[in-house]
Amino acid sequence: MVTPLVEELEPLFNPHSVAVVGATNNWNKWGFSTLSSVLNGFKGEIYPVNQREDQVIGLRAYRRVTDIPGPVDLAVFVIPAPAVPAVMEDCVAKGVKAGVIITAGFMETGEEGRRLQDEVVRIARKGNIRFIGPNCMGYWSASANLRAFMAPLLVEDGPLALVSQGGNVGGAVVMSGYVRGVGFHRYVSCGAAADIQIEDYIEYFGEDPKVKVILAYIEGLNDGRRFLEKVLRVTKRKPVVVLKPGKTNAAVKAISSHSGALAGTDVVFGGAFKKAGVIRVDSPEELLDVAIGFLTQPLPKGRNVAILTPGGSYGVLCADACASDGLNVIKLPEETIEALDKVFPPRWSRGNPVDPAGDRNFLAYLTAPGKLLRLEDVDALIFMGFGGFSTFASTLSTQSAALPRDLAASPFRGLEMFSSALAGARASRNLEQLKDTIRAGIAAFASTMGVDNPSEIDELSEIITEAVASGKLDTFSAGRPHPVEASLQHEPADGVTAFMGAIVRQYIDTFHKPVITTTFGDQFVRLQDSYYAYPSGDRAARVLVKLAEYREYLERESVLESR
Amino acid sequence: MVTPLVEELEPLFNPHSVAVVGATNNWNKWGFSTLSSVLNGFKGEIYPVNQREDQVIGLRAYRRVTDIPGPVDLAVFVIPAPAVPAVMEDCVAKGVKAGVIITAGFMETGEEGRRLQDEVVRIARKGNIRFIGPNCMGYWSASANLRAFMAPLLVEDGPLALVSQGGNVGGAVVMSGYVRGVGFHRYVSCGAAADIQIEDYIEYFGEDPKVKVILAYIEGLNDGRRFLEKVLRVTKRKPVVVLKPGKTNAAVKAISSHSGALAGTDVVFGGAFKKAGVIRVDSPEELLDVAIGFLTQPLPKGRNVAILTPGGSYGVLCADACASDGLNVIKLPEETIEALDKVFPPRWSRGNPVDPAGDRNFLAYLTAPGKLLRLEDVDALIFMGFGGFSTFASTLSTQSAALPRDLAASPFRGLEMFSSALAGARASRNLEQLKDTIRAGIAAFASTMGVDNPSEIDELSEIITEAVASGKLDTFSAGRPHPVEASLQHEPADGVTAFMGAIVRQYIDTFHKPVITTTFGDQFVRLQDSYYAYPSGDRAARVLVKLAEYREYLERESVLESR
Repeated sequence: MVTPLVEELEPLFNPHSVAVVGATNNWNKWGFSTLSSVLNGFKGEIYPVNQREDQVIGLRAYRRVTDIPGPVDLAVFVIPAPAVPAVMEDCVAKGVKAGVIITAGFMETGEEGRRLQDEVVRIARKGNIRFIGPNCMGYWSASANLRAFMAPLLVEDGPLALVSQGGNVGGAVVMSGYVRGVGFHRYVSCGAAADIQIEDYIEYFGEDPKVKVILAYIEGLNDGRRFLEKVLRVTKRKPVVVLKPGKTNAAVKAISSHSGALAGTDVVFGGAFKKAGVIRVDSPEELLDVAIGFLTQPLPKGRNVAILTPGGSYGVLCADACASDGLNVIKLPEETIEALDKVFPPRWSRGNPVDPAGDRNFLAYLTAPGKLLRLEDVDALIFMGFGGFSTFASTLSTQSAALPRDLAASPFRGLEMFSSALAGARASRNLEQLKDTIRAGIAAFASTMGVDNPSEIDELSEIITEAVASGKLDTFSAGRPHPVEASLQHEPADGVTAFMGAIVRQYIDTFHKPVITTTFGDQFVRLQDSYYAYPSGDRAARVLVKLAEYREYLERESVLESR
Repeated sequence: MVTPLVEELEPLFNPHSVAVVGATNNWNKWGFSTLSSVLNGFKGEIYPVNQREDQVIGLRAYRRVTDIPGPVDLAVFVIPAPAVPAVMEDCVAKGVKAGVIITAGFMETGEEGRRLQDEVVRIARKGNIRFIGPNCMGYWSASANLRAFMAPLLVEDGPLALVSQGGNVGGAVVMSGYVRGVGFHRYVSCGAAADIQIEDYIEYFGEDPKVKVILAYIEGLNDGRRFLEKVLRVTKRKPVVVLKPGKTNAAVKAISSHSGALAGTDVVFGGAFKKAGVIRVDSPEELLDVAIGFLTQPLPKGRNVAILTPGGSYGVLCADACASDGLNVIKLPEETIEALDKVFPPRWSRGNPVDPAGDRNFLAYLTAPGKLLRLEDVDALIFMGFGGFSTFASTLSTQSAALPRDLAASPFRGLEMFSSALAGARASRNLEQLKDTIRAGIAAFASTMGVDNPSEIDELSEIITEAVASGKLDTFSAGRPHPVEASLQHEPADGVTAFMGAIVRQYIDTFHKPVITTTFGDQFVRLQDSYYAYPSGDRAARVLVKLAEYREYLERESVLESR
């Protein structure tokens, strides 16, 4: 079922031909970088329009849009503001279906600019041309592989969509996503939103099954009531995460000169967002953090959190962040403390955060999540120091140059034993046999660590067997030079991360609760097969509280029945 | 002049021989990773002590410390807690001068542990053995190239020193520093601080001329009054930046089970820190951010800030962050607006943040800092989107594969013209001649952009000439495969960053005011020749407000005369 809006915006997001008006050979003009962005990927017809040049960047150029021989679906405007109305008239005459006006100098400059902008809207309406902008940086459509964007943009297709009232903030979020391994199906720098409004993009993204989470950077709204009405319908189906500056007068003033938007009262915005189920964040970084949280985690049923940490100080900082953000760092029941007493040394913290205080029994650490997640009172787990394992593996291999050969190899001997058992297990299709082989492999690995704890070995075998049986370890090897087994041997850091990721995802699937992992320190982590580790406990806590807020909203609106 | 404390701690930080008690061949024990950490760098004598093995990691092992033939300066304890007192007795008998007790299981476990700890202190005092710990991860001393640390530690020598009551948080800060290109002269994971107190380390770092900024992670203090008295003397000479969790009950409880410290009332700590001139931060990330700020920036004379941004939305977020943090985003005087009117297009923001709204005149952007910094009312500048230039260069070169050859080269043709002029200029030693050559190079570069603005070319020539004359562009080429000229041609991204860094440092030297730069998005930036760009405006704002706080403290204490 295609809604009228989806139909109307089809030529904008899936054009077959594009005219770039103002395209030029002068490298220091936006008309150059915009055309070269379009050239970088778009496979349809591309027509530069330039009043003086016959060729632009190696393509035949036309004096006017009306001179172009074939049909034109989309016109990109990179020309001075006063020239826009006449070109828009040409577009109407030519039968152009959609536009993006990158040009600035409209309503944000005052009364005269506002009149010019109204004139452009009037002309476009006449020809049923829907357009993005003006005063924007352009947009990206993955389905058309089209970067109608005035600067180079590193982006891949993916489950996110972003509309941003700031092209720079939006571009930075998109490129940070690229670095983190998460893609965008759409990105629109909406500028003044003279025609298509921010809420229209959100509605459109809401209709697109490829878009799982919607992001927005908003400085102000043309029609707050319309925004809330439209967005309220979207948030019931998928999360809408919004960064809205303007808490201070300094920002309100800056907004007025940047986008010309009325920032409105921050408190009013906050209340309205909350009512509409919009998840509000405080920085571009958090926008992506929360988006990745929605992509990789189920929603928590409440705000009770358990923290599992390989280091006490990290547990302290994480507990502080959780409690400050409104999560409950719960008291563990006596039977859980007793269960953990059996696997951790007596010096463990015996409370939440769960801190084995430097215990090196990896098996115990990996089975602890099950002991916590099975508690009715635990709605989510923050599982810390995760990248730590891979860091440990890689730094140990770095420093092992100083060690005798056989000793340098020993930390990896266990991994090798385990990985060859795993290779055998995956060849089998019999679940019991698979589990037996995995159990034997884990036992062999454990013995190299001097660990012998049958019940932990059993528990871990269960989880890993389920992860293998449900294909979680298969997908980790897809697109890599070698399968998991080889990767465990030859690239310990990568292999260990992949392996740990599969276990975490298995816990999530088993208990239907969020298990948010963290690494230590300023490390870049890429999203891999829906596994992600945040660089710190406070960022993990912030994500978790936003997931909880969204769940609470859905329950309030009776979209979810309380289970 | 060597103080008693410096003399006492000399064998700890500069030992000639180290015994690792509890060293083992079992890779899954801390005694293995600790010895391999010591082996990774330390050039003095290394003696493993193990009750059963004759060889450990290829070295001859001894049953007891007293069996070691040569003198032992330092003993590292990686053995169970109950065994520590007897080994400490051996150390006294042997004449060991210093120790580090990694072992946990002392005061943090309760009354019995406290008695055991007191016993160890009593024995050590008898032999004048000063020691770190217990319940710590160890330490790093750059002057001895010694990692007496229980996990692998990536670290280089540098101007920072850190004492941390959490080995994991401390290790993560040190390794993040390594990734960011900033080193540590000392790092101590102090644990329970049974003997040497946190304030002793701070006093010791205060005496070391190689240490420029002191960092600390503190969960609680054994003697708050002593801490404040000692630290008060240090903060008058160099900044002490502290991360202290414990704002929530959840954290206070976690602290009690982690370090056994009494977290105290957060408000009391806050007040005392402020009085002692301690700069307090909220996360490990901010600890490093602020440290880098102190290393690279002069102190601002007040809280008035100007913001210069290539994109309006980033200016909005930065202004919001500045005002929230207590900085004043000042109103610009009319004459400055008029001066910027002359170089920016009419659509520029005409206010603070200064946003040229997509103007491509690079020259104007680079001269704007001078127009802002010369204002009496401006105490500091946040200069945004800096990494943006290098990102732009690198992504443009990536996408240029799609362009005809001559056009793909054109963005770099101007840089080539400029860089060959620069090569000529640096050959000269005559300042006027240098300036003339640079001016000609900039003019040539400007002409490829279609820009012709003599006064901007003059201003920029001035700044660049001073940067070259004071050796700022020389240092950028040190340690690189090719000098700046070649780098501008062959590695545009790196070259542009280096070049921009030199200009920023020249502005700092000229106006004696902080110029804090930012890049866009989640990028890793390395500290290079005292140039650093923060990933966002809010992190830059946080750093600036901490520099201002420190300056205000020094003025309050009359350490600085108000200039």
